[in-house]
Order: sequence, then structure tokens, then C-alpha cells
Amino acid sequence: MDLLARLASAVGEKNVLAGPDEIAAYAQEPRGLFQGRALAVVKPANVAQVSQVLALCNESGTGVVPQGGNTGLVGGQTPDASGLQIILSLLRLDRIRDVDPLCDAMTLEAGVTLARAQEAAESVDRYFPLSLASEGSCTIGGNLATNAGGVHVVSYGSARALALGVEAVLADGRILSTLSKLRKDNTGYDLTSLLIGSEGTLGVITAATMKLFPRPRARICVFLGLSEPARALALFGEFKSRLGPELQAFELMPRIGLDFVLRHIPGSRDPLPEQYPWYALADFASMQDDGIEDRVIAALADTEAAGLSGAAAIASSLAQAEDFWRLRESMSEAQKFEGGSIKHDVSVPIGDTPAFIDEASRAVTAFIPGARPVPFGHMGDGNIHFNVSQPLGMEKSDFLARWDEVNEIVHGIVAKLGGSVSAEHGVGVLKRDLLRRVKAPVALEAMRAIKASLDPKGVLNPGKLL
Amino acid sequence: MDLLARLASAVGEKNVLAGPDEIAAYAQEPRGLFQGRALAVVKPANVAQVSQVLALCNESGTGVVPQGGNTGLVGGQTPDASGLQIILSLLRLDRIRDVDPLCDAMTLEAGVTLARAQEAAESVDRYFPLSLASEGSCTIGGNLATNAGGVHVVSYGSARALALGVEAVLADGRILSTLSKLRKDNTGYDLTSLLIGSEGTLGVITAATMKLFPRPRARICVFLGLSEPARALALFGEFKSRLGPELQAFELMPRIGLDFVLRHIPGSRDPLPEQYPWYALADFASMQDDGIEDRVIAALADTEAAGLSGAAAIASSLAQAEDFWRLRESMSEAQKFEGGSIKHDVSVPIGDTPAFIDEASRAVTAFIPGARPVPFGHMGDGNIHFNVSQPLGMEKSDFLARWDEVNEIVHGIVAKLGGSVSAEHGVGVLKRDLLRRVKAPVALEAMRAIKASLDPKGVLNPGKLL
Repeated sequence: MDLLARLASAVGEKNVLAGPDEIAAYAQEPRGLFQGRALAVVKPANVAQVSQVLALCNESGTGVVPQGGNTGLVGGQTPDASGLQIILSLLRLDRIRDVDPLCDAMTLEAGVTLARAQEAAESVDRYFPLSLASEGSCTIGGNLATNAGGVHVVSYGSARALALGVEAVLADGRILSTLSKLRKDNTGYDLTSLLIGSEGTLGVITAATMKLFPRPRARICVFLGLSEPARALALFGEFKSRLGPELQAFELMPRIGLDFVLRHIPGSRDPLPEQYPWYALADFASMQDDGIEDRVIAALADTEAAGLSGAAAIASSLAQAEDFWRLRESMSEAQKFEGGSIKHDVSVPIGDTPAFIDEASRAVTAFIPGARPVPFGHMGDGNIHFNVSQPLGMEKSDFLARWDEVNEIVHGIVAKLGGSVSAEHGVGVLKRDLLRRVKAPVALEAMRAIKASLDPKGVLNPGKLL
Repeated sequence: MDLLARLASAVGEKNVLAGPDEIAAYAQEPRGLFQGRALAVVKPANVAQVSQVLALCNESGTGVVPQGGNTGLVGGQTPDASGLQIILSLLRLDRIRDVDPLCDAMTLEAGVTLARAQEAAESVDRYFPLSLASEGSCTIGGNLATNAGGVHVVSYGSARALALGVEAVLADGRILSTLSKLRKDNTGYDLTSLLIGSEGTLGVITAATMKLFPRPRARICVFLGLSEPARALALFGEFKSRLGPELQAFELMPRIGLDFVLRHIPGSRDPLPEQYPWYALADFASMQDDGIEDRVIAALADTEAAGLSGAAAIASSLAQAEDFWRLRESMSEAQKFEGGSIKHDVSVPIGDTPAFIDEASRAVTAFIPGARPVPFGHMGDGNIHFNVSQPLGMEKSDFLARWDEVNEIVHGIVAKLGGSVSAEHGVGVLKRDLLRRVKAPVALEAMRAIKASLDPKGVLNPGKLL
């Protein structure tokens, strides 16, 4: 019996998609930046079937590319061009196994979308803080495989910090479960953290127990005008020391990015009457209904008096807060209307963000005169999406042809500052070769040794990350 | 040249202690429960020397037992009886390399004591929340090797959650550094978390970058009388949902434990005028000078009205708060005066703590009539130190002879509830054989595979954990 027939007997015939059109829908990510070919798309219904599929593929030496909502940005979920790999879709593992407000834990299968996970938490009056632009379609399995970040890392950490345990299938089909509601367990190596962020190269995550948090009773969102990123840094420090974990998000945007949004995204409007070179967007939350607004207003009065910020707009309704956030979240989208854009998902020590933005902007515009840097993002984590829009009037293809050179310049500055070339999107195929150059050799060696020990035949997501 | 001579040339003659008396001071832990013999104690001064020492030991196949403040409770830092292992003391690596309030990060060498780490944070108006009874002598290296817990896990997590990166020497002497001030870095496997909690079996941690937090401006400490653990659980839920991260610690104590402390620890006194079967000790902290006391008092009024707690004493001074905490922290010490004590460091899902305490207490007293369970500890994490004092009038040795049987009973109940047999103290030698029986086989296999991949000759802390 050939592999496809065996896979069909494991998961049911209709869950092995082998037609070219059927495969195509999974073998390309939505933006079309990464595409491959595949032998088949296999859609198991539960962990036992995932185990059977992996055992069969390991036996035959067939590469397996795990896939959740197919929203990854670095090609980690896309097969290579050989047509010999299978795509393992986890979308049918979509059960919410348990939501437990007493233990503040919920156990979800890999294919549950992030939005459903958030709703499951809300249904028991709890809060699940992971939040990303793609939350309607990305899945918990993918979030964990890539250690997703998002806008609340400053207060709650990345996906890894939110997990209590995982269930994963190893390369040869063995099921490894660290699922647990325990807050403390010192019985051995942290296999949970190792699997999270390994981009499907060490195991296929099939379920996870995630932490729940008390649901904030009041939120307040502030949009501030600033003269420069250094002021944003000082402002962030002030907010953090005065409000601690009540500061839930702290984002930075340049005027040019806001201009792009105002110009191209219907319905957007500038929250402030005057223009500023930079903007910060800060979210605050409190466990009490009252008090937070007074605390934030007092902090704003002091920071404004200290010259840190210009004017500030406080959202007076949830709708207005959503409007503020839409400005921030439309920043990538708006850039599309301005021609080609060369992107970087980098982090530096937060104290170095102003220096990084300044130096990288100068270097890029010196290299391509007229290039328009649009550095924005999660300043509270030191994570800047350093996107560069093409010069006005330049041919898009001429600009994009310089992608690698611009990357080289920006990543060089990141390296000098002890930063990371992938803050939150992961490595996938996009940064695999780059990683070989920038990662410390001993760390790479340790990663390869671990990979070989858990997946000796190299069937799990071959060619990704390492 | 023999190994000792080579080690001496690496670290200097006076830093290789080979006399029996010199060795004895390191080869036994302070309580005398674990002791071994060693070829020598080697005391390198820096990571380069640690690297040389490990390379030499790996070459000669000599077992290396890393040691910090020698305060571990499970024998992880003690050599075996062969006299062929060396003790690698990290105490001379005691530099505070960097304290950076802008990035909220500090880089410390392994031999820095926890108390010094806390002081380093305070010196820049920041807070480092790791706090243990042994903080005056335990070291950051040991805290990380064992993923130390302590009283603030409920709000800040264990040692692993506080680390941004580590510097470690691998078995063959290669130096692996993930030291970093970055809050986000998705460039590969989480080697930091893997090394933390590996009890010196995967690498010797020589330094770490730890997170700093805003320093709370106000603290309040409450001592509450309760009728039963289920009330403590409800009270904890109420505090958490009303005060969120302002709840910094939540401990449970039984009346018998308080009785022991009042009877045996000079200067201790009952904070409440009446007796209660159980007590909770809760710490709250706020980033603002005012407000927290009102919030806590309002919560107490409501929880008392709801019948969750009896009387509550609020510490009116730092000295009084310290008195409350001394009652909690003297609980182990006070038990010594009551004869033999059989101990368990276990955790269960927090919602199951009342059931665990009830069932384990019944089972143990049914097995040894008159045995006196003293379950206390970090209820906010589901981590109960289930200590059992001997029956009055029983021979201590007769009681202690039943250690393994009592363990078996208690750990059986822990297993049934999905708990952990080592919540925060680690495995070491004390629970190594137990681990083999209770840990999922696939997890053990994965741990052994990783161990073999990073330490193929098995020279790092042999016989510990695995």
C-alpha cells in the first residue's frame, strides 16, 4: 500500500486532499509570497490520527509541514517546491477541551482560532491576552509553534509565557503531553518551552493548556503626540513605573505612517488637532471600575508638564479606542498604496530603540535617497517593524530588487545593538539563511543537536528554521 | 599531568581544594541529609575558567557537580559517594555585570546571592521579585538551575519566568550565551528555558540577564482566619479578580502549624484574638502610594460579609508585616521541636488544593494514627508543603522509618489529581527514582535524548534528575 493510501486509512479518504487545486489552497500563503507543492494535504481529526500520520511519514522519510490558519509571515507553514512533502493541517483539531475559571486554565486543541480562544475565556469572565491582527483565522497551534507576540507582550509576555503545557506528537508518532493546570512543576526539563517556538521542527503541537487572567473591569486608551522616539521611551518608563502592569500596550508610530493611513484607509481621522512627528498609543486596564482614568490623567498631566508628550487624546468610548487602534493596525496595509515596501521585524534592547530608529533611518535613506522609513510597532517590547516605503516616482521593482541589501544594512545595525532579526514572526524559510549567519554558532550547534535527537530522520518541517 | 594538576593550572593552585576537610565543607549540605565525597572542589573565577574546567573533565570523563550556595533541598548539589567527582563551586563568579533600569534588566554572575540581586535592583529603584527563605546565601546560578519558586510566583512566576537569557558552559567546555536584554526574540529554540531547571545536567549556568520590575510604592499585608481550605480558595479567587497583579503572595497555614510556631519560636504571637482552623497570609502591592489600602479593606469587608473569612489583621507597619511573615516562614523550623517530620513539596491544580489537603490528611492519619499533618505553603500556586509531624509519644525513628510509605500515599493522591511530586525544590537525587516512576515515559525519553545530545559522555551532574 502506498503512503497516500495508508494516510487515507488513518484519517479517512476524504481527509487526504491530493488534487492539485485542493493542494494549492494550502500550499500557498495568502499574500502569495511563499508557495510550494505538496504530495497531499492531510487533515487528521485528533491527536491519535496525528500520531498515525507522523509514524507513517517518519517510516517513509516523508517531510511533514504542519499548518494551522496559514497566516504565518515567514513561510514556516508552506511546503518546499519538491512536491514530496505533505501538509499536515491541524484545522480539524478544533475542540475546546476544558475552560476552568477556578484554576484559571483552558485546554484547547491546535486548530482553535485565537478569536475563539479569547471568547472561551470571556465566556467564564476571564481574559486571554494574546491578541494579533490575524486573530480571526490564526490558530492556537500556530501561535504556539511560532511563539506569537502581538500587542500585549509588554504586560503578559509572548505565547510561550501564556502556556502551562502542551500536547505534541514527536517525529516518530509518540505523543508527548505536558498538558497541565499546574502553576509550578519542577520535575525535569522544560519541554513545553522547547516545543513552543520551534516552528514545527521538534514536534507537532496538537493541544495546549493556556493561562487565564482576571478580566479587567475598566480600560482606557490614549493617543499621544510626540517630538521624537526618545520621548516615547521616557514616557513608557514613566507609565510603567507609575502604573506597572496596568500598562497593557505601548505602541509607537511615525507621522508618515499616520499620513499613509489617513490618505488610504477610508474612515480614518487624526485624533489630534495638530501634527506631531511621532505618536504613541497606550492602553491601560484596571481590575476596578474606577480609578484608572484618574491615574492615567494624572500621569499625562505630569508627563506633559515634563515636556515628554504634546497633546493627548483619551478615547471616550470603546468605539473611539477601536478607531485609535485601527490607525495603528492599518499601518502595514496603508503602505501598500505607497508602492513597494521592504520590511523588518526586529527587536533591540528597549533603551536602544531611539538610537536604532535614528541610525537605521539615516542608513537606509543614505543608501536609497528618497526612501521613506516607516518604523512602527511594539515599542514597549523594543520590537520595531522597520518598514521602508519606496521613494516617490521610483519603479517598484527597482526598489524591491534592493531588498537584500537594505536588510543587510538594517540587520547590521540590529546586530551592533545586540538585537534580534526576528522579534515575533519567527524564522521559517524567510530568515533561515540569515539565522545561520547571525546566530551564535554554539547556539546553532545546540539547536541542531536537539533537533537530531528528537527528529533523527529530519521529517518535521524540513528546511525551516535550521 | 594528572587532572588535579591540570585543573590547578586552569584556575590557580589555591582554587583547587583537595584536602578532606576542605572538601567536606562542600560535599555535605547544611542539614546533613545529603553528603558525598569528591576528588576536589574547583573554584573558577570566570566563565573562561569554567570552560577550561569542563573541557578537562569531559576529556577525562570526570563527573562535575555544580554548586552555588549549597542550599538546595534535594541533594542536587552534592557529589555521590565515589569520591571521583569534582565539585564545581561557582561562588567566585560573583560580579554584577550590569544593572540597567532603562531596559529593566540586570546581568549577574552565577555566584551572586539572591539578596545581593535584590539589592542591585533596589539600587536603581527597581524590584526583583524572587524571594526565598535562603536568599541570604542561595545564588542566582542555583536559583536558575533549579527554577526556584518562592513566595511571589503567584504574581511574577518562577525563576525561569524572570530570566531574559543565560550564559552557560556546555559539557565539553563550549560557552553558550543567550544573555540579552531583549523582550522578544524568535530566532530559534528556547535554550534559555531548557537550561533553567535542568539542575546542572545540561550545562553550567555562569551568568544570567534577569528582568527588573517597577518598584511598588505601597505594600499591605493581611493575616486572615478561615474555617477551611475551600474558603481560602474562594478568597484567593476573589482577591485575584478584584486586585489582579496587586495580589503578590497568598499563603495558607493550618492552626496546628501556627500552634507549633507560637509554642517554639521565641517572640511569635497570634495576630488574631480568636483561634481559627486555618489562616491565609496575603501580600498586596501597588505602584501608587495611596489607594491600595482602601481597595484591600473593601475586598475584606465583602469577603467577610460573604462568610469567606473570619477576622483579619492588617499589618500597620513594615515590622508587623514581617512578624506575620515570620509566622509563615518559621513553620518548618517549628516542626523540628515536635519530633520527626515527613515532608512533601507537591503541587496540584489550584482548584484541587482543598480536596488534596483533605484527602491526604485523612489517608496519612489513617495509615499512622495520631500523625499530625501540617499542610502549608503557596496556595496561590497550588503548591502545598505537605509536612507530617509524628504522633505525640511515638519514637522518632519509628515514624521516620515509614517515610517512603507515607510518600507513596501522598504522591498517589497527587498523581490522581494531575499534580507534581516536585513543585519547586526540584528532583536532585531525592526524587530521581520517584521521577522514573511517575513521569510520563515519552517525556522521560525526550529528556534523555536531549541530555545525550548535549552531554554525550554524561559528565554533568551525573545521577541527578535523570
